[in-house]
Amino acid sequence: MLGVISNHAASSGKLGSITLVGAGPGDPDLLTLGALKAIHAADLVIADRLVSKEILALIKSELKIAQKYPGCAHDAQNEIYRWCAEGLVEGKKIVRLKIGDPFVFGRGGEEVLELRKFGVEAKVIPGISSALAGPLAAGIPVTHRGVANRVVFCTGMGKEESIPDIPAYHPEQTCVFLMAVGRLKALTDDLTKGGYPSTTPVGIIERATTPHERTIRGTIEDIVILASEEKIRPPSVIVVGEAVNVLSKQEKHHQTIIPFRRSAMSLESLSKACEPSGEGSES
Amino acid sequence: MLGVISNHAASSGKLGSITLVGAGPGDPDLLTLGALKAIHAADLVIADRLVSKEILALIKSELKIAQKYPGCAHDAQNEIYRWCAEGLVEGKKIVRLKIGDPFVFGRGGEEVLELRKFGVEAKVIPGISSALAGPLAAGIPVTHRGVANRVVFCTGMGKEESIPDIPAYHPEQTCVFLMAVGRLKALTDDLTKGGYPSTTPVGIIERATTPHERTIRGTIEDIVILASEEKIRPPSVIVVGEAVNVLSKQEKHHQTIIPFRRSAMSLESLSKACEPSGEGSES
Repeated sequence: MLGVISNHAASSGKLGSITLVGAGPGDPDLLTLGALKAIHAADLVIADRLVSKEILALIKSELKIAQKYPGCAHDAQNEIYRWCAEGLVEGKKIVRLKIGDPFVFGRGGEEVLELRKFGVEAKVIPGISSALAGPLAAGIPVTHRGVANRVVFCTGMGKEESIPDIPAYHPEQTCVFLMAVGRLKALTDDLTKGGYPSTTPVGIIERATTPHERTIRGTIEDIVILASEEKIRPPSVIVVGEAVNVLSKQEKHHQTIIPFRRSAMSLESLSKACEPSGEGSES
Repeated sequence: MLGVISNHAASSGKLGSITLVGAGPGDPDLLTLGALKAIHAADLVIADRLVSKEILALIKSELKIAQKYPGCAHDAQNEIYRWCAEGLVEGKKIVRLKIGDPFVFGRGGEEVLELRKFGVEAKVIPGISSALAGPLAAGIPVTHRGVANRVVFCTGMGKEESIPDIPAYHPEQTCVFLMAVGRLKALTDDLTKGGYPSTTPVGIIERATTPHERTIRGTIEDIVILASEEKIRPPSVIVVGEAVNVLSKQEKHHQTIIPFRRSAMSLESLSKACEPSGEGSES
């Protein structure tokens, strides 16, 4: 059916446009200026279910929210494509608003390929990935000279609900697992079997960058019990490696590291300050 | 000497504050709203040398730019700390403006630790890392179901100019190397020795998200010659893995994927649109 819409639209010559936009991890202050501009220029925003209500509140255009729950992802994805096709036929400027970064476990590449079938080339705007912002919000630098010289982002859930391999152990590596807190026990078992020392530090950041954010820290050996005691729930980011404690060890009050604090300055006054140089050129 | 300033400042009880802010890869539209607010609330901005002139143009406060060239990084870093200490003593709101994300090969963790010696706890605002925005700008999704289920960020240069190990080969892994284009030949030799097939796709994105951005694509076998022919220079991002071609294979004009295009809408009109819900709460 989508093919029919696509062919019809392509022949009419009045297709709209689509931009895949990264919404970041949740806090509206972690939107990019480019994302905010795209949202406000849109006729239709098609948002993921997990986009925060504070960001949804910025949308003044028509808004459709994908209901992609576990187990019905495929149907929901088809509904998204149908909405895209309908909007394109109507000549709309569409923003496809995705949590985090569109190309980090966000199916962004798949959506680009699918949208080509409709005769459009999606633009893509990067976003702050929770794989970076999650650890940062908890005061964890994913890289740190002499401690971690590389960082791996992994998903707890692969294609068709498969479980991807864990990365080979390396003492100077930080691993960040997304969408894996529901299978934390199996993950720590895999890490142990994979040669990760049981004393390797593990941090879990729940609902990073939201007002409900909290962090627990332990090791591969005890994190399952700690997470159970604290009733840690998705969405959570799991960080494994020595970098987890590089700042907290020497910290008396690690809560004092926060990703940012909203300034009292309004966006309006900001816009006046940066108007002369913030516009006018393509890049 | 820094210790003396620090003790003096701590005893006066009128220390300023410091926020480490990620400036993103270069384009001002890839600044976050939080970063822009912090810049405009600052009394003093201490910027990295590579922060783009378009972003520097947004700074209305006092500005100091670190001259951290290869070979003199240590002295330059001490100068940065001295500027921080002096600003703190003067009670200034300081923004330490760092390219990319402060915690991705940005020494952000080290700066947090050093600043604690001065008696302050730095806030940290994440930024778009060029490790993500570079590939995205070239139309490369670093993850893609069935192709790449994890992504590794590596640096070409470790502590004291050491060369870090390359990640173990895995067919469903994307590797992103930063600060490594100057030693591309040695890197491809290491990859080959490490069991990476010589046909593994490699993309290099030079000056990602700037008007001078360009991309070359090849394989581990031929990328050194291609990069030499094209005179590829730093700063460049190197991407290795099957994900490099996942979109370009089926693309007629891969130049049409651009990270974003500036909208005609002014920041002022944006600010009016999002004023009601964009302010007023801490997070």
